[in-house]
Amino acid sequence: MEHDLDQTFALLARTPAALNALLRDLPEAWIDRNEGGDTWTATQVVGHLVHCERVDWLARAKRILEFGESQPFNPVNRDAYLEEEKPAPLAELLDEFARLRAANLDELRAMRIDSTKLAQRGLHRVFGPVTLSQLLATWATHDMTHLHQISRILAYQYRDAVGPWIAYLGVLHCAGHSS
Amino acid sequence: MEHDLDQTFALLARTPAALNALLRDLPEAWIDRNEGGDTWTATQVVGHLVHCERVDWLARAKRILEFGESQPFNPVNRDAYLEEEKPAPLAELLDEFARLRAANLDELRAMRIDSTKLAQRGLHRVFGPVTLSQLLATWATHDMTHLHQISRILAYQYRDAVGPWIAYLGVLHCAGHSS
Repeated sequence: MEHDLDQTFALLARTPAALNALLRDLPEAWIDRNEGGDTWTATQVVGHLVHCERVDWLARAKRILEFGESQPFNPVNRDAYLEEEKPAPLAELLDEFARLRAANLDELRAMRIDSTKLAQRGLHRVFGPVTLSQLLATWATHDMTHLHQISRILAYQYRDAVGPWIAYLGVLHCAGHSS
Repeated sequence: MEHDLDQTFALLARTPAALNALLRDLPEAWIDRNEGGDTWTATQVVGHLVHCERVDWLARAKRILEFGESQPFNPVNRDAYLEEEKPAPLAELLDEFARLRAANLDELRAMRIDSTKLAQRGLHRVFGPVTLSQLLATWATHDMTHLHQISRILAYQYRDAVGPWIAYLGVLHCAGHSS
């Protein structure tokens, strides 16, 4: 379907509560284990979402509206959370994600985005010109990519425990494309 | 990791609230669209989870403890929700899922499952002997498979809207193994 701003707001508004309901107070065995190698834990995924909420999405929307294609977006540091000296625990990250998301959506609403603004373009360093509409659709879809990843990380911890049922559990056959 | 009953309870207890936070009152464009062909909508996935909660998981656990390998499990009708004459709306399904899950977990706790019971075997018509431990681990992992699927169904609706960002959004490259 076409991008629809009301639908984007609706989904963006729900992700923090969904992650909170899924993850808060889960035993460490669920939230602090990864899928092997240098993959992320569920906690690290939420840390990444907090980082994006802090420095990425809204800053890019503003850059499009203020500078168009004349100033490319800043690159995102995907590993910012992992590089923190004292990474915050999951409960704090969930609180911070909810707080930042609500504030960002308030600010986005105050920008009174209409179809003219949605069609405005910014400059992505890899893709070239992209529209505000594409950026906002990506923001919501990026939430889903990481919810997809978290469900896979959790399932992965039981890959042996399920025995022969592994054949029927699609999430255990996911190729990890959403890391 | 090994199956751990407390961890299984913790995850099983959270899924209904997570789906509720994600899906309740979302616009129809999110919840009533599928990934094309005969794939499921988010609403249909929740209908499937309700059906499993009603007829599958707890019934299988009881069959293992009462009949061991002498009586195979009943097959699951994966399309039960789709075949209902008057399929319930999503809000009712979310309520029903939460109610049934809580009741099933209460009943499971009352069964006082210990390591001896976890090792008891039942008979799966395809896999042959399976343990109660494997069944319970599968119950929790099955939740994750369908959360994985729902995140993918929602993302799919914006596969065009995100423009070139599709390259970075792993969920849009998922092969649909979790349907």
